[in-house]
Amino acid sequence: MTQLQQARAGRITEQMERVARREGIAPQRIRDEVAAGRVVIPANRRHLNGADGGAKLDPIGIGRAVGTKINANIGASADSSCKDQELLKLQWAVKYGADTVMDLSTGGDLDETRRYLIANATVPVGTVPIYSMIVERPIEQLTYDDILAGVSAQAAQGVDFFTIHAGVLRKHLALTQKRKMGMVSRGGSLLVKWMVHHGRENPMYEMFDEISAILAEYDVAYSLGDALRPGCLADASDEAQFAELEVLGELVGRARAAGVQTIVEGPGHIPFDQIQMNMTRQQELCDGAPFYVLGPIVTDAFPGYDHITSAIGATAAAYYGASFLCYVTPAEHLALPTGEDVKAGCIAYKIAAHAADVARGHVGARDWDDRISEARARFDWAGQFALAFDGEAASAIRGRDQVDPDGDFCSMCGRAWCAMRISKEVKEQASGTK
Amino acid sequence: MTQLQQARAGRITEQMERVARREGIAPQRIRDEVAAGRVVIPANRRHLNGADGGAKLDPIGIGRAVGTKINANIGASADSSCKDQELLKLQWAVKYGADTVMDLSTGGDLDETRRYLIANATVPVGTVPIYSMIVERPIEQLTYDDILAGVSAQAAQGVDFFTIHAGVLRKHLALTQKRKMGMVSRGGSLLVKWMVHHGRENPMYEMFDEISAILAEYDVAYSLGDALRPGCLADASDEAQFAELEVLGELVGRARAAGVQTIVEGPGHIPFDQIQMNMTRQQELCDGAPFYVLGPIVTDAFPGYDHITSAIGATAAAYYGASFLCYVTPAEHLALPTGEDVKAGCIAYKIAAHAADVARGHVGARDWDDRISEARARFDWAGQFALAFDGEAASAIRGRDQVDPDGDFCSMCGRAWCAMRISKEVKEQASGTK
Repeated sequence: MTQLQQARAGRITEQMERVARREGIAPQRIRDEVAAGRVVIPANRRHLNGADGGAKLDPIGIGRAVGTKINANIGASADSSCKDQELLKLQWAVKYGADTVMDLSTGGDLDETRRYLIANATVPVGTVPIYSMIVERPIEQLTYDDILAGVSAQAAQGVDFFTIHAGVLRKHLALTQKRKMGMVSRGGSLLVKWMVHHGRENPMYEMFDEISAILAEYDVAYSLGDALRPGCLADASDEAQFAELEVLGELVGRARAAGVQTIVEGPGHIPFDQIQMNMTRQQELCDGAPFYVLGPIVTDAFPGYDHITSAIGATAAAYYGASFLCYVTPAEHLALPTGEDVKAGCIAYKIAAHAADVARGHVGARDWDDRISEARARFDWAGQFALAFDGEAASAIRGRDQVDPDGDFCSMCGRAWCAMRISKEVKEQASGTK
Repeated sequence: MTQLQQARAGRITEQMERVARREGIAPQRIRDEVAAGRVVIPANRRHLNGADGGAKLDPIGIGRAVGTKINANIGASADSSCKDQELLKLQWAVKYGADTVMDLSTGGDLDETRRYLIANATVPVGTVPIYSMIVERPIEQLTYDDILAGVSAQAAQGVDFFTIHAGVLRKHLALTQKRKMGMVSRGGSLLVKWMVHHGRENPMYEMFDEISAILAEYDVAYSLGDALRPGCLADASDEAQFAELEVLGELVGRARAAGVQTIVEGPGHIPFDQIQMNMTRQQELCDGAPFYVLGPIVTDAFPGYDHITSAIGATAAAYYGASFLCYVTPAEHLALPTGEDVKAGCIAYKIAAHAADVARGHVGARDWDDRISEARARFDWAGQFALAFDGEAASAIRGRDQVDPDGDFCSMCGRAWCAMRISKEVKEQASGTK
């Protein structure tokens, strides 16, 4: 039985207990949210048990009832990276706060890289199974049997969640013709190529129930892909995007009926003022299924800085309804991310997730800010750096000007001009303690 | 006569015309907005004429009717930097899009640094005049005459806008006692120290009309400082902050009556969900005077990354009501910014300003995104990098994997997997052009 089926049966699994402990929330509440499909615990039973003697998954929960989570995309391409570089990226991603990783490899030995990453990951690992199905053959030759075999093989390897682009239908394709950017989903565009070539409906949609049966067997969670997400501001919130979202809403119901936990993927590139509407619409159409957004990027004009353009959108998204944020790195639109890009992306997204959790009043979120602010006010630099998300970086910046490491000031203002020091003096003077 | 006085008299100045041209807005509209105090053109007549043979100011407008503007704080401290390093920061700030700079020097020869920066700046230069008044003497010895002399001297040097902390009053001090962080305004805390020492009211408030007369003479704009801005999330939107804001609203009226253009300064550290309320409140209390915010930072827990934490807040602020964004650099809370920090801060704030302009539907703002997206969709890399805000950085990222520089793909996915290329193919196939 999947986590969803057990929750519906009233059972609290070990994994629900672990999530409850991590979040400081009662296990009953987690179970109820899992039962309703509003919290998803991506935990393939093979990964839970440490498939092939590898690392055992330490489960997490994704949904509005728990803290906002972030995902780091890693994986080699034909033009860049290799298995060991990808392991390093996995380690950096986890060090800098990724709650999950997706192996999006499209180059090198895909099966072996996937096996290697799962064996080394205690965080949930996601994939887009269609990638491995078409490295072996032109997309046009892909058969229904190939698809089921590919999904089965990866489920058996221990993948915790699958992006399946089952929502894009033939009738949607005309809606993308007006777009500036067409389709920007890799898996989605490949499927559409197949659909156009064969003049047939999306096979992921046609075989949805068969695929669901495989996912239920291993308790792999769906991450329903959005093949028609907008790739620029001009295409945002258009008919194509929302027509697909409606189908995704229908599929959430079918997946849940099959006992499969389900997340829904979302954009992409969205102007800041349209983010709230997009989040509300998904929550309504998808019956509260966790929304997993890629950014969104709020301006197209800053390639090289899309960790920032998208962290702005991600904060608003997580405030208004998303619960799972797929990072975007500075390399987006330009190149395969390096380890440094992975770090920059993770940090920007931890900021977005935490800022949103504080803003939506998520239980306990602001305690962290309060503790670090108290240390800052005390000039307890060591305490501040220990509490900071990346204390190493903060300490290095403070250290570069060689001021007294324990002093009650920094080089920004110097001691005589430090507002916090003066403010403290004034307070002591006013209260007669000095 | 100041820009404000001329606008009220129905005159369109050369500076209003220049602003109208820059913004693509009719000069009459700029004049009307200046007359209403909702657009401010900081343009000291001595800077306009190239004081002492230096650079002549190229005026800009600040307000909701025009594009969102950003400011870069530069200036040496006692522990770091010098005049020539600050000139370099000025140049970097302008290169990376700063619309104005503030010289916040508290170390070195303040008068000489200020003169040197004004002589080299075609953008408006702001200062906090109290800094230079107290490098020569302990704050306690500062007299009313010193204050007027200091303000006069800097106005005569050609400074375009002054931060004057005239809104913090004795009755407010008790309200800060509950705070975690007390006061974090450098100029504000020094004034309060004077007030507590002498048991007297804020001299900037007491002498507000005399100071206004000096500003009117040179057409220096007020930037009414917020001495009680919150320095951490816990202190945000508290009684102290809003009590001072009410006084600032009163002072906007008095400054305008004296013919002085007026901007109002705001926070600081504000949780994401409180930003809209803060912006609305300022616009109401201050009769539409441009709101000049420092960030706001939306989480306290990421020192070293406060250009990002604050760009998130700045985007929301500019969407909801601010029109002037003071950058925050990665060095905030830690050290004096370097040239690299200035660059990082400026870019993060150009993102915030532009994303907000797109979101609020500011005329023409999204054209830039559309043009770059069209170049991206065409795989016109040179065109994309020419349009990008920092094309040099974007090009370097793309270049690092040695893929075909003119190819229809990048190393993120490789050619076979490029969604945009496949999407184009599908479109051609579907429309029968291939």
